[in-house]
Order: sequence, then C-alpha cells, then structure tokens
Amino acid sequence: MDFSLSDEERAVRDTVRAFVTREVVPLEDEVLRNERAGRPPLPDGVLTALQEKARAAGYWGVTTPPEYGGMGLAPVMHAVLEMELARTFVPFRFGGSADNILFAASAAQREAYLLPTIAGERRSCFALTEPGAGSDARNIRTRARRDGADWLLDGEKTFITGGDAADFAILFARADEGVTAFLVDRDRGWTSTPIPTMGEWSCASVVFDGVRVPADAVLGEVGGGLELALSWIGQGRYVIPARAVGAGERLLGMACAHASTRESMGHPIAEYQAIQWQIADSQVELEATKWLTLHAAWQAQTGRDARHATAIAKLHGAETANRVVDRVLQIHGGMGYTRELPIERWYRELRVLRIYEGTDEIQRRTIARNLLRGHVALGVIGD
Amino acid sequence: MDFSLSDEERAVRDTVRAFVTREVVPLEDEVLRNERAGRPPLPDGVLTALQEKARAAGYWGVTTPPEYGGMGLAPVMHAVLEMELARTFVPFRFGGSADNILFAASAAQREAYLLPTIAGERRSCFALTEPGAGSDARNIRTRARRDGADWLLDGEKTFITGGDAADFAILFARADEGVTAFLVDRDRGWTSTPIPTMGEWSCASVVFDGVRVPADAVLGEVGGGLELALSWIGQGRYVIPARAVGAGERLLGMACAHASTRESMGHPIAEYQAIQWQIADSQVELEATKWLTLHAAWQAQTGRDARHATAIAKLHGAETANRVVDRVLQIHGGMGYTRELPIERWYRELRVLRIYEGTDEIQRRTIARNLLRGHVALGVIGD
Amino acid sequence: MDFSLSDEERAVRDTVRAFVTREVVPLEDEVLRNERAGRPPLPDGVLTALQEKARAAGYWGVTTPPEYGGMGLAPVMHAVLEMELARTFVPFRFGGSADNILFAASAAQREAYLLPTIAGERRSCFALTEPGAGSDARNIRTRARRDGADWLLDGEKTFITGGDAADFAILFARADEGVTAFLVDRDRGWTSTPIPTMGEWSCASVVFDGVRVPADAVLGEVGGGLELALSWIGQGRYVIPARAVGAGERLLGMACAHASTRESMGHPIAEYQAIQWQIADSQVELEATKWLTLHAAWQAQTGRDARHATAIAKLHGAETANRVVDRVLQIHGGMGYTRELPIERWYRELRVLRIYEGTDEIQRRTIARNLLRGHVALGVIGD
Amino acid sequence: MDFSLSDEERAVRDTVRAFVTREVVPLEDEVLRNERAGRPPLPDGVLTALQEKARAAGYWGVTTPPEYGGMGLAPVMHAVLEMELARTFVPFRFGGSADNILFAASAAQREAYLLPTIAGERRSCFALTEPGAGSDARNIRTRARRDGADWLLDGEKTFITGGDAADFAILFARADEGVTAFLVDRDRGWTSTPIPTMGEWSCASVVFDGVRVPADAVLGEVGGGLELALSWIGQGRYVIPARAVGAGERLLGMACAHASTRESMGHPIAEYQAIQWQIADSQVELEATKWLTLHAAWQAQTGRDARHATAIAKLHGAETANRVVDRVLQIHGGMGYTRELPIERWYRELRVLRIYEGTDEIQRRTIARNLLRGHVALGVIGD
Repeated sequence: MDFSLSDEERAVRDTVRAFVTREVVPLEDEVLRNERAGRPPLPDGVLTALQEKARAAGYWGVTTPPEYGGMGLAPVMHAVLEMELARTFVPFRFGGSADNILFAASAAQREAYLLPTIAGERRSCFALTEPGAGSDARNIRTRARRDGADWLLDGEKTFITGGDAADFAILFARADEGVTAFLVDRDRGWTSTPIPTMGEWSCASVVFDGVRVPADAVLGEVGGGLELALSWIGQGRYVIPARAVGAGERLLGMACAHASTRESMGHPIAEYQAIQWQIADSQVELEATKWLTLHAAWQAQTGRDARHATAIAKLHGAETANRVVDRVLQIHGGMGYTRELPIERWYRELRVLRIYEGTDEIQRRTIARNLLRGHVALGVIGD
Repeated sequence: MDFSLSDEERAVRDTVRAFVTREVVPLEDEVLRNERAGRPPLPDGVLTALQEKARAAGYWGVTTPPEYGGMGLAPVMHAVLEMELARTFVPFRFGGSADNILFAASAAQREAYLLPTIAGERRSCFALTEPGAGSDARNIRTRARRDGADWLLDGEKTFITGGDAADFAILFARADEGVTAFLVDRDRGWTSTPIPTMGEWSCASVVFDGVRVPADAVLGEVGGGLELALSWIGQGRYVIPARAVGAGERLLGMACAHASTRESMGHPIAEYQAIQWQIADSQVELEATKWLTLHAAWQAQTGRDARHATAIAKLHGAETANRVVDRVLQIHGGMGYTRELPIERWYRELRVLRIYEGTDEIQRRTIARNLLRGHVALGVIGD
Repeated sequence: MDFSLSDEERAVRDTVRAFVTREVVPLEDEVLRNERAGRPPLPDGVLTALQEKARAAGYWGVTTPPEYGGMGLAPVMHAVLEMELARTFVPFRFGGSADNILFAASAAQREAYLLPTIAGERRSCFALTEPGAGSDARNIRTRARRDGADWLLDGEKTFITGGDAADFAILFARADEGVTAFLVDRDRGWTSTPIPTMGEWSCASVVFDGVRVPADAVLGEVGGGLELALSWIGQGRYVIPARAVGAGERLLGMACAHASTRESMGHPIAEYQAIQWQIADSQVELEATKWLTLHAAWQAQTGRDARHATAIAKLHGAETANRVVDRVLQIHGGMGYTRELPIERWYRELRVLRIYEGTDEIQRRTIARNLLRGHVALGVIGD
Repeated sequence: MDFSLSDEERAVRDTVRAFVTREVVPLEDEVLRNERAGRPPLPDGVLTALQEKARAAGYWGVTTPPEYGGMGLAPVMHAVLEMELARTFVPFRFGGSADNILFAASAAQREAYLLPTIAGERRSCFALTEPGAGSDARNIRTRARRDGADWLLDGEKTFITGGDAADFAILFARADEGVTAFLVDRDRGWTSTPIPTMGEWSCASVVFDGVRVPADAVLGEVGGGLELALSWIGQGRYVIPARAVGAGERLLGMACAHASTRESMGHPIAEYQAIQWQIADSQVELEATKWLTLHAAWQAQTGRDARHATAIAKLHGAETANRVVDRVLQIHGGMGYTRELPIERWYRELRVLRIYEGTDEIQRRTIARNLLRGHVALGVIGD
C-alpha cells in the first residue's frame, strides 16, 4: 500500500493549490458583494479569462483524453484536483471538459457537439430526471415518436444542472424500442425555466413540446439510452465527496483561525472543549471522507467496479460537509449567520450534496442491498 | 397535575389558530414571491391592517397588562399563542406590545416611550450586545460620560434586532457608576446599518458617536442597568421553543402530506421506514419541546424561578427545530431545496434559533453549572 | 395546566423516596458483591421483609384497587412511584400487585389466581411471545385443541419475564375459534428454561407439550384472547420511561459528584466543557422523558387514548436511559467500566429497555403510522 | 497511490484468515459455555497448543524483528493481521511477542527479560497508570528512593493489563532524577489484585510497598523513564481501530445473515429500510475506520510522525465499534440481548475501546490542539 502522491502528482496538486490561492480566492469578496446585491457572482469574462490563464499553465481539459488536447488525469488525481478547487466558493472550473457521455458520439456528432464543447464554444445539459420520478431512471415518461425519418420529442425534465445556459441537451426519451438518448439543439425548440434554489446550484426545468429532430440526433443506439446513461452515471461521482473535503477543510481552517482570536469569558474560545470537540470531530470526519474518496477513485482508476465504494464515499462526504459547515457556523456565532462571511453561503450550498447525484437514501439503499444480496463482501482489504 | 387547557384557554387557542389559518396563511405565496424577487415580504400596511383586524377580535397586546389595554395573557397561554403564530412564516405579530423592560420607565418616559410603543406609533430596539462580546453582558465597552447635566454616549452595538427600523434605542453603556440604561431617540444622532443574514432575521449594527442625551434619558438607576437588563432578559425566552414547536409541526405536516402522495419505486414514500423513522423522531422531539416549553412557562407563571427550565426548553427547541426542518427538506428531496416551497426558507430562518438569545453553548453551560454547583436539584417532579 | 403535585401526592412521593434512600439503597453494595460472586442478588426473604415493612407504612398493591386491599394509585402517581423506585438497582418492588389482565378473571379464577397473586402467594407469567414472532402477536402458533371437555396445549413461548419462577402461566394459544387465553398451573406439566441475558432481566423459554387443562382454565372468552391481550398490553407501559427517569437521574447525580472531585490536568473535570456538555444533554433529555411520561400517564388517567403518547414516551425514555448511562460511564473513565461501581450494571441492564415491551422499531412504526394515517393529529396541546 | 496489498501480503492475510476460520472460530461455542458457567474461557494449554500450530506455519512473533526469530511484519500488515484476529472473540494471539519497550533493554536484561518473554516463558505488565491520574503520565506519584546501591519502590498502579498474570512488571516511578523505568520481578514482593470489569479485559491493580530492586533493574536511563515511555506509548495504537474493524465486520456479517432469514410482519427484516440503514451506516463507518487505520499504520511504517493519524483512527474506531455492535444487537432484538449469542459479549467488551489507551476525550483534545497550535496542517493529501 502507498498513501502518498508521486513527486509529479504532488507538483500538480501544489500548482493548482497555488493557482487557487493566488488567482481565485482573491475574487471571493467580489462574489459575495455581487450575490448580496442580487447580481451574478462575477462579470462576464472574468472566469473565462481565468480559464485561459490556467490553460497557459497547462490546466485544460483535466479529464479530457490527450488525443482531444486534455490532461487526461486519472481519477485519483482528478479527485485531488477537485479537493483543491473546492477550497474556494468562487464558481471556477478549468476549461476544456465535456460531459463524459459525449465521448460516445458518432464522428459527425463529435464535430458538432463534443469538440465545440471541449473548446468551450458550446454548452450541454444532461436531461434525464423527470418530475415525480426522483432517482428512478427506469421510469422515464418523456416520449420519442418517429415521424417519417424524424423523431418528435415530448416531455418535461427537471433539476437539470446548467439547463438554462445550455445550447444543446442530452435528452433521454422513451421510444418504442426503449429509452433513447438524443442530442437536441436548443434552436430545435425546447425551452427552459431556471429553478431558484437555496444555494447557488443553477438548475432548470426543461420542456420538449413536439420538438422535431432528425435520425442522426440519436446518441448511441436507438433503445440503448438507458445502458448508455447507466454506464456513465456515477462514474465520476467521487468528485462530490472530493469537493466536500476541499470545502470542509477550508471551513475548518476558518474555524481554527476564528477560535484562536475570538474571546469569550476572558479566554480565546479555542481553549474551550466545546469548541475543540467540534474541531476534532470535523477533522476526523473529513479525513475519513478523504480516504474513502481516494479509495473509490483508485478503484475506478485500476479498472475495479467502483460503484459500491463510490456510494460509500458520496454518502459520507455529503453528510460530513453538512455537519462541518454547521459546526463552523456555530463556532462563529452570530457572525457565522450573517452574509458578511461566506459560511452561510456554504451552509446553503452544501445542503444539496445530500440530495443530488443520488440522495442519502438512495446511497444507503444501494450499500445495504449490495451487502444483503452478496454483491459485495465484507472483510475486503485493498482487493 | 393537569396537562389540559381550560375551556376558555382552548377557545383562545382555537380562535388564534383559525385567524392564522384564514387570514395569515393565505399570504404565504405572496411573501415567497416577493422575497424571491428581492422585495420586502409584504407591501406596507398589509400587516398593520391584519393587526387591526385581530384587534377588533380582541387580540391586541397579548402580554401587555390590562391597565395598558392589553390582554395580559399569562406565560402558558402566551407560549400557546406563539406556537400558533409560528405555524406560518408570514412575519405577522399581534400589535400592542412593548419590550418588557420599558415597563420600568418613569412617568415621563411612559408617556414618551412606553405608551406610543404599545400603540404601535414608535419602535424600540434593545441595544446590549457588542462586537466581540458575544453573550457576555458584563463586558460592555460602550461608554457614557457626563458632560454637564448631559451624557455623551460612544460605542457600537451589533446584532440588534429591529435596529434599523427603531426610532429609539434602549442602550446599555458603561458610566463611572456602572452599566446604565438609556432611552435614546434616533434623532439624537445614532446611526444604524442593517446586517444581512442567511434568514429573514432583521438585525443591525448601531453606532453612537458622541451622542448627547439629557439626564432624564436614564432608564431606571444610574449604574443599575445591568441588574435591570438581567431581570428582564430571558424572562420570555420560552417563546423561542414555542415557535420551534409551531414551525416544526407545520413542517412535519407538510412532510406527512408529501410522503403520502409522492411515489418512489412504485410506492408512496410513506411506506418506507427511512421516511417513517424521520417522521416519528420529529414528532417525538417536538412533543418533548412542547412539554419542556409549557413547563418553563408554567414555572414563570406560578412565580417559580424559571431560568433553568427555560434554558432547557430553549436549547431543546432550537436543536429540534433544526433537525426537523432538515429531515422535512430531505423528505422532499430536490423540491425541498428549491425556492418553490417555503421549506428552504425555514431551513435558513430556524438556524438562528441556535444562536440568538443565548447560543446552544451558553444554554449548556448554564444548565451544567446549575447542576454542578447545586443551584438546581435532580429528582424534581413538579415542585 | 398544572405541572405540580398536590400536597398529598408530594407526601407519597417523599415517603417513597425516603424509604428507598433509607431501606433499599443501603442494600446496593451487598447486591453488587453477590452478583460479582455469581450469587442471587439478595438472600431469600430480604426483599419480602422489606415488602412487609413497606406494607406496614401503607405501601402495598400500589395500583391494585382498594377493594382488593390496594392503594389504587392512578397512573400519574404510579409513574412518580416508579421513578422513585428506579433510583436504585436493587430489585425491590412493593408487594400486593398482580398482572392487570388477571382482573378479567371469573369468580372462581379470582379465588384461585388473582387473590393469591395479590397476596404474594402465587406468581404468574405472561406467556405471549413466541420464537421467531417478535412483536407480532397476531402470528401465534401455539395450539389449543379440544379433547372432550378439556384442552390440549402445545407450543413454545420465549422471553417470558418471570417464566422460571412462575407457578402459573397466562398462556395465549390458537384455538379453532381464535386466540384464547388460559390460566395454566405449572403442575399441569409445562416446563421452563431460564434465558441468561446481558443484564439482570430474568426471562425464560416455556414449553407446553400436550399440556391438558379443563374448560374453566379459559380466561375471558374462547377466541377472545387477542382482544383481551391487546386491551391490557401497553396500558401501563409508561412505567418503562418512568424507570428510565429514575435510573437516569441517579446516574447523572453520580456523574456530577464524580466530576466535582475527580481531577485531570490539575482541574476538577467538572470544569471541562466536554464533561459539562454531557451532563447538560443528559438532564435535558431526562427532563423531556419525564414530561412525556407524565403526560402519557395523565392521558391514561383521564380516560384519553394514551397509546400514542405512551409509544412516544417509551421510545424517548429507552433511548435516553441508554445515552445517559453511556455518558456517565464515560465520565467515570476506567472506573466506570469496572464492577467496583454499579454503572456497568446499569449499562447492561438498561439496554433491554430498547428491546422489550415493543422495540424502538415497533414504537417508531406505530408513531409514524398513527400520523400518516391520520389516527392522531399534529398541533395538539393538552387536548 | 496504491490501496492494494501485494501478492505476498495477500497470501499472509489469507493464511491468517483461514487459520482463524478453521482453528479459532470453532472454539467460540466452548468459550461462551465456559464464560456462562463462570469458568476461564478455555482450558489451560488450548491456546498454547494453537500458538504452536501457528508457529509451525510460520506465525510467531509477528512484529518481533527477524534477528529475534520473529516475522518482523511492518505496521500495515500488522494492522491487517489484527483485523483478521479480531474476527473472533476467542482470546487468541500469536506467540513470540514482547512489549515493545523491552527492546530498550540492556544486554543482561535482554537475557533475563526480553528473550524469555518472546519465548513465552515470562510475562510482563506495563505499570504506568495510577489511581486518580488517568491519562496524565506526567503526574506519577509512585516513588523510587535510593537505599545504598538499591532502589526502594513505593506506590500503587491501576488498570494494569495482564497485571495479575505477569511475573515481572515494567514499573514507572519517580526518582529524584525524574521518572524512571524499572524491571521488577514479582518475587521482589509486589502484589496484584484483579479488577473485574464489564468485559473480558483482564486488568489489575498492582501495589509496591517498599519493594527493593538492585541498580541494574533500571530500564534505560535513570530519570529517562518518561521519554522512554512516551517514545513507545501509542506507537502501535493502530491495532485498536484495526480490531474494531475486524470485530465490526464479523458482527455486521451476523446482522446481514440474521436479517435475511428472520421474518417480521411477513417479510424478512432485510427488506425494511430501518434495518438496511443500520447495515449501510455500519459498513460506511467501518470502511472509514479501515482506511484511517491503514493510513496511520502506513505513516508509522514510512517513518512519518503517525501520532495525529493514530489518534484520529483510534477515536474513530472506538466509536464505530460501539455503534456497530449496538445496531447489530438491536437488529437481533431479544436474541441479541441473551447470552445465547456472542453479541452481548462484544457489546460489553468493545466498550473499553473508548476508554483505554487514551479515552475518546484525550484523543479529541490531542487532535484539536494539534490543529489549533499548527502542529499539523489541513489540506494534507498523502504527504
């Protein structure tokens, strides 16, 4: 066993950490001010300019294969990178990535969708979830009917991340042959409505009302959409607990700094065990999430079936992040509740981790059934 | 022992419940729409009109003594009333109340401050907490210096509820003789800045920069401010867990209704134990808060020292409300996280219950020290 | 509302408390010594002599109706009494009680079973639970077949409290007409085997292998056994959380005393918040159990349907008692883990509270279903 | 990073697992029967014979350096081995080990103490903790006074693991030069009294009343005892969470098996989410302990300062083991509470994990202070 990063990996991590510290964190105050004023977090172009700066340093398409011009980072380093990016709430991501299902595109689709998406010229949304269907992908009611050589698409999708900004949708609809995936440009006629949430998660409902697409809009096989979706969904889900680690450690650092300076009853509150205990428990849980996440990523990286380990890491990370931000808010007292500090923002934002990409309940159900049905064994150590 | 309300009390409760259901709850959608649009919850005058309507039905000055035109409700019924009002998030309160410390006013102050406040013509704020001082009232740094017959006031207060809307402040400042309370009109020159928070709690920082007031601005005795404050602070704190009960029961009712209709994997989610358990635990905890709160109110009502029981109820209620709203949000899944439903609003709003009027930490400290120092005994049953 | 005891009730409570303190608590060391040596907790006759002493002071048949020579205490005072008795682990109960289902006896059964049981001359056991059936009373497999005028009884019961010491069983068996209750003397041929447990709970498995009883052994109606059982089961279940309160407060008192004297790092551990918090949380939870329990007892006392409130109190009390004893053990450190102190005994003993008389799971299921099916309403205050 | 075992390591793990399954687990029923009857767990010689059998297979002195005839396993594999051994409650350990502080012995002490201990001919106890001193090693009151060339030792030690079976003690006493370690044969006159505990942990109090030892009884330097102790204490503490993993996984396996066969309300209880959730949470927590433990062991193995990681793993493992056994007991209902199954034995036994080798409180204090004082940094990933 080896729990260390190689020198090369360490260099990547340190470069990203330095970039975040030097280039991204300084934007935080502006983001807070803008959001308090009801404006978008940052003016147009600021994040794009940052992405270009990062690209110049080689950070572009972090998981995109080298043949597409990406870094092609394997899952463990991908998780490490996400931890680093999550140390700030500024909504910065490296450029050059595409929804991984797009790599199943045909040659023509590659030119029209995949490459422009990697280049940052087009934006996709993954339109699977429907109202009332929750996590039950098998229950899709959006219809795809043939009309001559075309397809007519009818239905509604909800909680679609990036659905309002996308210019094409990866839509899952039920054809006679079974669930099928389509690539549908927005100018084909679908509409979107943003869904405001408690946090900064930007999602939308998306409506297809007799949208017509040609036969070559099908991604993969007709009737093969569900298998396609399931083969990609959850693959990179380790990024969620990775983000929990990054955000949680940043918050914990704020709590330690505050506790060392803030006084109560004549002592820095860091001297009180009620504060110390919250700090200790937070670190223990964050360390646990960290290793569960890296283990899940390592399983994916080495060709193992990582679904069980990923469910474990995702559940643990989502709960941990929420407990940590709750404690850190409490340690800051009234200040933590105000919009002067970013803690309340994280408090609102991190709550969705327990809901999207499979709720806590779905993860627990998966984990328990895997065990009870013998799909996974106990007593596994690094197999 | 008798855990029932009298017929008369029941009638009060039912009247208020009906009023809330019929007059206040229908405003909820408008409040949500306004807040989502960045507007005040309701247009000017709507709440005032409602207060007048309630007054016509006899609901005015619920805890204000009859000699001032109030209902003079005793604590148990006051707690019951707060439970009823908290069943909606519309910021409606009955009119005709004043900060209870104002009843210590001199005859002249009564005319100038107490009576207009009860009449709804003036608004006070209670300016005690200072930056960096937290719950430590003994550590006041705001200064009151004599200048001839006048006083000069210098200092800063923070987290002052209603501080931005108040037209006079009940200010606590340190004179040579000790902490002293002053009634200070805003036009004497103090300024306020609202502090935006995660929830709808409206508080402000308040600055006194050489504010001059005459000798008769002193409330009570010079040097007697701390005793005055301590004799009133916390007296009516049972209203906080009472609100936790009302809000929590409303939320739990929403969860029950949702669970009975929402389906997952072909069954209403009410059939799943993971949902049932969250519902059961929520009710158990809310019932516990309910009786702890009514017991604390009863102690105050019967002349007992209610501080220990109130600390217990406040701590239990604040934690319970947060656990309940967290579960109810989770039961609603993605919908609970959106601003389409009021759950996220309660999630943000109820968090402050664990912070203001004595944080969880202050309550635990008080409870433990009372026990360890023998100020209260174990084994007490209805004494 | 009135949360106080009357003067008369207070006198009862104080008398019992004094009796426990003066007569029962001094036996604790002997009980610990005997149990450590593998002997019964006390020599024969010691508890009987104490019962006689209590009888002389009027404490006999606390819930037995006066027409049978008992005190006929109503549920609230019964709960108070159980709290007092539970302040010690010495297995002392007042004499003069009988399983409440025996009050359904016929005139002849009254002479043969009820009166001798009240007099302490006979001992019953309530034989309902079967292996593999858990809390599911409807699933009884023990058979009652007619053989001429007699009945032949075949089956096995398990976890029967007092099953090894009883000289007659109240047996539930399935006849053609439905589940029927029988009074069965041990010399009819049934056998018992004690089931050793982690705690001091004394239960047994009981086997009926062709046991013959006459027609007049039926208690109540043939086929009416289940209704009979259900009408009594759970009626007095508020005694379980009452015992949780008594034991928990005794333990918490030990923790306070220990924390005030034991030093660590140069300070009494009572000065450390990690200890204070455990003490505060324990008292908050015990106070909550106390009022939930007294409220459930009051509902039973005033003819209300107390089943929902009792489920709430039982669940809360069982969990609270276990959390409290766990904290108190931890506060005592290594000493708490040894058999020098009675804490580990309580730790083992109180665990069964979460299992018998309806597991935590059964209580949660009941509470949730009552709410979800509308059998009980939210927003109830002292109705 | 690499989370796998090498082929060679895997072979070691599989051999030990097979040995435990084939040779040790079959003794469990006998251990339960003996303990229920108040007898020692196994007759003399049974465990020794097993140790010889294991030695024949090469399992002897697992952490003892090869130059002393041991396997010299490094910490990661040592932790793996402890996980395997902890899958049974039979008190079997491989032979050929010695308290690691004995490797600091002089040449003569090596012959007299270290080698015979490795050979299984002598047994030591580590006598550091004193009554009232808890985890505070700096507060030793046992005295060592010079008397001519000899030392006279006076004092009392408590909670000394193996103190009643040892034939020599590694005693820490305060000399004028500072705390000093001594090797003291029992026939020098010290006495021991076993301390019965809730579990099977075998500890004793040990009394030195004017015990005389020669100058060469000093282990290490006079006055250097504390540094010596601190340099060894806690080094191998990762074995405690390792045992938590082994025991927890065995228990969880029992729960899965039971849930799949036991029926309630007509369904296997494995179908109920209340059971599934407990199973899922248990596995999540055990996986977390597993990786925290292996990470701590890896730090020790690679020469890093493992104290912080070990404190994290120990705290997490101790709490996890107790939560898991509590859930598994509850899943088994009444059966889990009886002594027919070993669950209640583990319930009693695992409780001490939260107390010895540094209580939960000591671990939290250490973790928090390391962070607050900057002794460890946040954001560490495999450094």
